[in-house]
Amino acid sequence: MTSGEPAPGPIRRGLGTGRLEAFSDGVFAIAITLLVLDIALPANAYRHLLHSLGELWPTYLAYVASFSTIGATWLGHNAITEYLERVDPVFVRLNLLLLLVVAFLPFPTKLFADYIDHDTLERVAVTFYGATLLLASTLLLVLWRYAVRKRLVRPDAADEEIEFLTQRLTPGLGGYLVLIVAGLFVPIVAVVGYLAIALYYIIPSRHLTTRIRRSLHRSRVT
Amino acid sequence: MTSGEPAPGPIRRGLGTGRLEAFSDGVFAIAITLLVLDIALPANAYRHLLHSLGELWPTYLAYVASFSTIGATWLGHNAITEYLERVDPVFVRLNLLLLLVVAFLPFPTKLFADYIDHDTLERVAVTFYGATLLLASTLLLVLWRYAVRKRLVRPDAADEEIEFLTQRLTPGLGGYLVLIVAGLFVPIVAVVGYLAIALYYIIPSRHLTTRIRRSLHRSRVT
Amino acid sequence: MTSGEPAPGPIRRGLGTGRLEAFSDGVFAIAITLLVLDIALPANAYRHLLHSLGELWPTYLAYVASFSTIGATWLGHNAITEYLERVDPVFVRLNLLLLLVVAFLPFPTKLFADYIDHDTLERVAVTFYGATLLLASTLLLVLWRYAVRKRLVRPDAADEEIEFLTQRLTPGLGGYLVLIVAGLFVPIVAVVGYLAIALYYIIPSRHLTTRIRRSLHRSRVT
Amino acid sequence: MTSGEPAPGPIRRGLGTGRLEAFSDGVFAIAITLLVLDIALPANAYRHLLHSLGELWPTYLAYVASFSTIGATWLGHNAITEYLERVDPVFVRLNLLLLLVVAFLPFPTKLFADYIDHDTLERVAVTFYGATLLLASTLLLVLWRYAVRKRLVRPDAADEEIEFLTQRLTPGLGGYLVLIVAGLFVPIVAVVGYLAIALYYIIPSRHLTTRIRRSLHRSRVT
Repeated sequence: MTSGEPAPGPIRRGLGTGRLEAFSDGVFAIAITLLVLDIALPANAYRHLLHSLGELWPTYLAYVASFSTIGATWLGHNAITEYLERVDPVFVRLNLLLLLVVAFLPFPTKLFADYIDHDTLERVAVTFYGATLLLASTLLLVLWRYAVRKRLVRPDAADEEIEFLTQRLTPGLGGYLVLIVAGLFVPIVAVVGYLAIALYYIIPSRHLTTRIRRSLHRSRVT
Repeated sequence: MTSGEPAPGPIRRGLGTGRLEAFSDGVFAIAITLLVLDIALPANAYRHLLHSLGELWPTYLAYVASFSTIGATWLGHNAITEYLERVDPVFVRLNLLLLLVVAFLPFPTKLFADYIDHDTLERVAVTFYGATLLLASTLLLVLWRYAVRKRLVRPDAADEEIEFLTQRLTPGLGGYLVLIVAGLFVPIVAVVGYLAIALYYIIPSRHLTTRIRRSLHRSRVT
Repeated sequence: MTSGEPAPGPIRRGLGTGRLEAFSDGVFAIAITLLVLDIALPANAYRHLLHSLGELWPTYLAYVASFSTIGATWLGHNAITEYLERVDPVFVRLNLLLLLVVAFLPFPTKLFADYIDHDTLERVAVTFYGATLLLASTLLLVLWRYAVRKRLVRPDAADEEIEFLTQRLTPGLGGYLVLIVAGLFVPIVAVVGYLAIALYYIIPSRHLTTRIRRSLHRSRVT
Repeated sequence: MTSGEPAPGPIRRGLGTGRLEAFSDGVFAIAITLLVLDIALPANAYRHLLHSLGELWPTYLAYVASFSTIGATWLGHNAITEYLERVDPVFVRLNLLLLLVVAFLPFPTKLFADYIDHDTLERVAVTFYGATLLLASTLLLVLWRYAVRKRLVRPDAADEEIEFLTQRLTPGLGGYLVLIVAGLFVPIVAVVGYLAIALYYIIPSRHLTTRIRRSLHRSRVT
């Protein structure tokens, strides 16, 4: 039985992956689209519109970085639920915690866009932004490790696949930690780094794809 | 036939649980994500950003409490539709009424965040907030009791399960009433209490899970 | 074949009812939840919070009236797609036009809430609001009549059912026209009337339900 | 096997079209509904409400043009995923890039509405708006050409159908380029043109429909 099949009874629907995925997808899609509300011209933009649009570059950068991060988290969330056979009460709570952080992201994004070009304050804003990204990334890994430890994962998932996804989700944490420290000295470096981490997650590794495909083929043969 | 199966004909789709769940999920997901729009720095935050971010703690608390409450209501809504075989016109109306209150929640949340640190006004804001939570909680219980009374519940649901869900949904009402009164004297106690009630609902009881699993097993054997 | 079955091939998915319903549901759910953003305390609410919350009654009324209207339109939209076997290009365009008006509704709602307690301006705001409701209601009826005329309706739908839905969707138009005129003299009457029309649509008629059930039974026997 | 069938295993769900369509639909529906937040009366509207509502015409025009463009892009996106058998990592990334531009559209829409009636600035606003539309349109075509080149398209899709969709998606690009240049001289012409292009895409060609229907018939006979 793959997790793609409809739930056989009430418990699978109540604590199954279907509703959890639908609700999570909704929150991801809304949070990613609300980011545009953070983009606004300053009140004095009137006289030099072209110049003001150019001056907004930190806002555009924040928009792209946050959009990519939420997009990457959504892809990671998909990869995790992909392997799940069922969820348990703790998993549902951890998932709500992850969504709480994802839905919160538009606020530090706005903060970052507002203060990036100010000498002393940009450090605070960039650190706050980075801490939120680190938290989202940590919760995603916690969600996955919890699912593996509590055997919520489909029995036909190969050990190497599970290990591979764990390895794939881990390096971001170190990256965020390094960038948060770097951001205290050179804020702009941190921001470009956050965007780079998001892009790293968005680009699925060929290695993983090949392994899954091979494993899928094996399970069909059996 | 479980309620997870597709509707057999027009009446099941028109008044079935599928569309009602999808629409409700959408409203829950959007309301929970709109909460972040209530978080904003005051205009004079410019000079002391770090301090201002710290001063926002009532906003963060309101965000977490409302997020948890909507999350808990969504879980409760899932538990109810889980047991439904069909819905009737009155149920659809009661459901819209519940969604009306859930979608309204971002407003008292903002009010609460704006006035929590003011001596006299925080009482008004906290009471207004608590009354909205009480209303949402009451409507959820009314929805469930109506479904039970009108026999909209699946025939294979055991009486003890139905009784258990009723018992599970009820104590929140008393809790909210006590906290609304307490909030008139010590507002912050009420708020922490609202968060506690939401967390109580989010953590599904092992008791319920075990019962459902046992009942499911029984119905399969039959 | 009922319209609840999955589309058999590409053309049913591209021009089928599934994607159209999902997208429409999304727009309905978002528009209905965005209404809360129109509720805001005036800047001078600070000193008399309780009084200000009471003074907001036109806003609450507008919130409930618009929420009910979008809810009713969603129910009507469900009833229509319920009978559809397929859609054609013109139907898709008409549906987008309906969604355009539904998604626009938060603006006249805000206008109505802002100006309801001002002597001369409330007439303009209430008329603008009523005109938008009339437009949405007209488009819903146009959508249904187009579907009937172009034979997009399932062949097993009884003529009397089709006629009944047409009759059900029509009286709202007359109601809105009367109320728009009445609103020029006594604005508050119009607003209560708009809410009444929405509630009329939300409460499905027993007559309709009985007929559908009977017809369904008949088609099963056959 | 048509792409309408549920995914047979993990890889189809992880990299299948189902989740990608659901998430994309969510972003399209939210972006199209957020457009209404750009409509606001100026602060001095108080005294001449009727006149102010009339003066808002550029805002209404922007609302309709952007709504139609997002609606048309959604239809184009549907047409593309319709032909897909599977997606690959690069396709997922290109799709996120398209969604990034679609979700960004409310910002240039607001800009356009704010500056359309100012002599010198409207040129900047209209060009910025047009450039965003051109980008979205280009990404939609890139998405489709990539899918065709990488053989992600269903094997039973006729060559002439594929060629037809390519031809259908292409002329918009030329149209946008011409209108961006025209907008530098007569801004209002560009805006009306943008709306015309969106309407052109919304109205599906009979030619295409007939071809698909014929091809579908053929594949069923086989």
